[in-house]
Amino acid sequence: MNIILRNIGVLATPLGSKAKGGPKQGEISFVKNAFVAIKDGKVAYIGDETKKSDKDFLRENFPYKEIDANGKLVTPGLVDPHTHLIFAGWRQKELSLKIKGYKYLDILKMGGGILYTVEKTRNASLQELVENAKKSLKIMLSYGTTTCEAKSGYGLNVEDELKSLRAIQILNESQPVEIVPTFMGAHAVPNEYKDKREYIRIVKEVMIPKVKKENLAEFCDVFCEEGVFDLKESEEILEQGKKYGLIPKIHADEITSMGGAKLAAKVGAVSAEHLIHADDEGIEELAKKGVIAVLLPGTSFYLGENFAKAEIFKEKNVPIALATDFNPGSSPNESLQIVMNLACLKYKLTPEEVLTAVTLNAAAAINRASKIGTIEEGKNADIIIWEAEDLDFICYHYGTNLVNKVIKKGELVWGVNV
Amino acid sequence: MNIILRNIGVLATPLGSKAKGGPKQGEISFVKNAFVAIKDGKVAYIGDETKKSDKDFLRENFPYKEIDANGKLVTPGLVDPHTHLIFAGWRQKELSLKIKGYKYLDILKMGGGILYTVEKTRNASLQELVENAKKSLKIMLSYGTTTCEAKSGYGLNVEDELKSLRAIQILNESQPVEIVPTFMGAHAVPNEYKDKREYIRIVKEVMIPKVKKENLAEFCDVFCEEGVFDLKESEEILEQGKKYGLIPKIHADEITSMGGAKLAAKVGAVSAEHLIHADDEGIEELAKKGVIAVLLPGTSFYLGENFAKAEIFKEKNVPIALATDFNPGSSPNESLQIVMNLACLKYKLTPEEVLTAVTLNAAAAINRASKIGTIEEGKNADIIIWEAEDLDFICYHYGTNLVNKVIKKGELVWGVNV
Ligand SMILES: [Zn+2]
Ligand SMILES: [Zn+2]
Repeated sequence: MNIILRNIGVLATPLGSKAKGGPKQGEISFVKNAFVAIKDGKVAYIGDETKKSDKDFLRENFPYKEIDANGKLVTPGLVDPHTHLIFAGWRQKELSLKIKGYKYLDILKMGGGILYTVEKTRNASLQELVENAKKSLKIMLSYGTTTCEAKSGYGLNVEDELKSLRAIQILNESQPVEIVPTFMGAHAVPNEYKDKREYIRIVKEVMIPKVKKENLAEFCDVFCEEGVFDLKESEEILEQGKKYGLIPKIHADEITSMGGAKLAAKVGAVSAEHLIHADDEGIEELAKKGVIAVLLPGTSFYLGENFAKAEIFKEKNVPIALATDFNPGSSPNESLQIVMNLACLKYKLTPEEVLTAVTLNAAAAINRASKIGTIEEGKNADIIIWEAEDLDFICYHYGTNLVNKVIKKGELVWGVNV
Repeated sequence: MNIILRNIGVLATPLGSKAKGGPKQGEISFVKNAFVAIKDGKVAYIGDETKKSDKDFLRENFPYKEIDANGKLVTPGLVDPHTHLIFAGWRQKELSLKIKGYKYLDILKMGGGILYTVEKTRNASLQELVENAKKSLKIMLSYGTTTCEAKSGYGLNVEDELKSLRAIQILNESQPVEIVPTFMGAHAVPNEYKDKREYIRIVKEVMIPKVKKENLAEFCDVFCEEGVFDLKESEEILEQGKKYGLIPKIHADEITSMGGAKLAAKVGAVSAEHLIHADDEGIEELAKKGVIAVLLPGTSFYLGENFAKAEIFKEKNVPIALATDFNPGSSPNESLQIVMNLACLKYKLTPEEVLTAVTLNAAAAINRASKIGTIEEGKNADIIIWEAEDLDFICYHYGTNLVNKVIKKGELVWGVNV
């Protein structure tokens, strides 16, 4: 069945299939009186309700099912380009410890921290991982996320890293949110390896080839940080990934200024993540190579960290994308809406820049900018109808869900009163 | 129809009918295997599913309709003791100006700020104000708020202040959230009064008597702040309110340290609000007089203000309540859930202190602690079933709605899949 989306208050979307940086960071097309015709899951035509020729198009192409936008804001579906979706082991118990003043290293020693989630993830069956993620995906969808990236990285051994990525495969066939898989065996060094070199060898020589053989991931990510994987180790893992067709991403310069941004440019990463302490030289390198900066204000908020200096990325023409960093330790949140609020309040991004960052630029950060991230003829019909009159409202109002309906590949998959 | 709420994972509630301060700030009763029997809108009996005598109670009191808590967390309904619910005129356009660096005074001069909302509120009909508030109340309810306070204060003339309070009366008869009305004619000095004394005279001699005559409010609130109402003006307005039976509340020490907390103690206010810059002496006075500190972390978050120093209130045994401060300028948010997250992250309150602050202490801040704010026999059956295993989870997980079902006075009034 074809669909026509009518009675749109304002259609707000970036245009094109390339990430926007610099002065065009936030260029948004605002169209009034638009209607959107959807055919075979794609945007077939964007018309003008006030034009006779467009009305003729409507008439000639019946029967259509109509969706009424009730005069509200319509945008592309949101894209979340950085999540750690696949895990078992929420860590709410650590909140009280944090409040009492325990540091992350104290909590690690008490059996908490990432290694708690690793243990629970290893003990979970494939089916349990799928069920856990399904709950989170349902929430994501209801808050407007139609596509997300998801990383492995709580298995940290061959079997459980593969299990995590297989969960993504199953999820892509059993619910509406499209999930783009990233292999992140190099998320941490598991407890059982006293010798980090041996773990790195397994990541490179066992995991990466197997991931490729089963075609389980598109990207390879590394946590490049003091005490985790250093610049040299990160580079060799990412280079090995490239040999097997996995495009690099890097968790870079989150806690210390290590040169992660520079490395991202050097290895030709599609994106660099966090970047709170990226130095000017690193940011310039990102700009030169067109690497997308995936900023994660929710994590800074939750951890009480500094916020990335978004104004420098803007100044130097680095395209900015925003993501939830959804994970059970440093960002227990599935919604891009609070991330959008934070980006305005803390990064001082404009609503236009924020919309670009959670649609087109986010799509580009996961190599999907030719298919999603804008509302344009030929692209997938991934569309949000908001409970809001305009773009400013969804950036200004915080704390509650402002999505009214979600259309994924031309199908109404979530809605208030659907 | 009577109801039994069964299959509760854990029942978490403060106990008693007095606000808790000091060492008992966050004392919460956690009960497993509880069931809650509800009769005539009140909690009739709290039993133990594992006890034979309690099972007999169940059997003998049939027929009951059962509500299944699915093994999840159950708490009292949330109470929001500080909102500016009644208005027309959202101000999303000001976000972009703020981001570009305009200050509040600049925005006021451009026709924005509170006076924009005042103009829209004056131009709105009573029915429009009711419809606007109804939308917000529906959101509040879905995020777990079963009772809220609401202030007038965007009318700022006799007619429109009364209209605002009449809207609350109508709302109390047409939707499930109970609303406790506060008269706040002294929210700002409207533009048309060059002479502040004349406006204060009208507040005191016309508005307050009329509010009383129509029985439109329980409390009288004043914005005591540099450039708004000073200590002396605030005191005379609150004293006049007292003569007419209106209990004082004060917006105190938000932006500057003016002695508002001390004034709250002096006039016998039930609560003092904001208190970001309250000094130690003022806080000690609050403690002596049992005044409740209503802290508003959402406003600090949204404005990028300092956060109130919650640890000092705790140290000095002042009971802490938390509220949204829902309003279109400084806190466009209806949900207490993000306020709970902020209170943990920014005030370092424990989950137990936070639950107390949004239930029993919030109820005490609006003189309702004998009726609501805890799950106890004889109190109203205002109850939340959460999509969470435990109290820690709802304080830790942020950004999305974790309420599963809301029971107000014994009736299931909101729910996922209801
Ligand atoms: Zn991450
Ligand atoms: Zn207020």
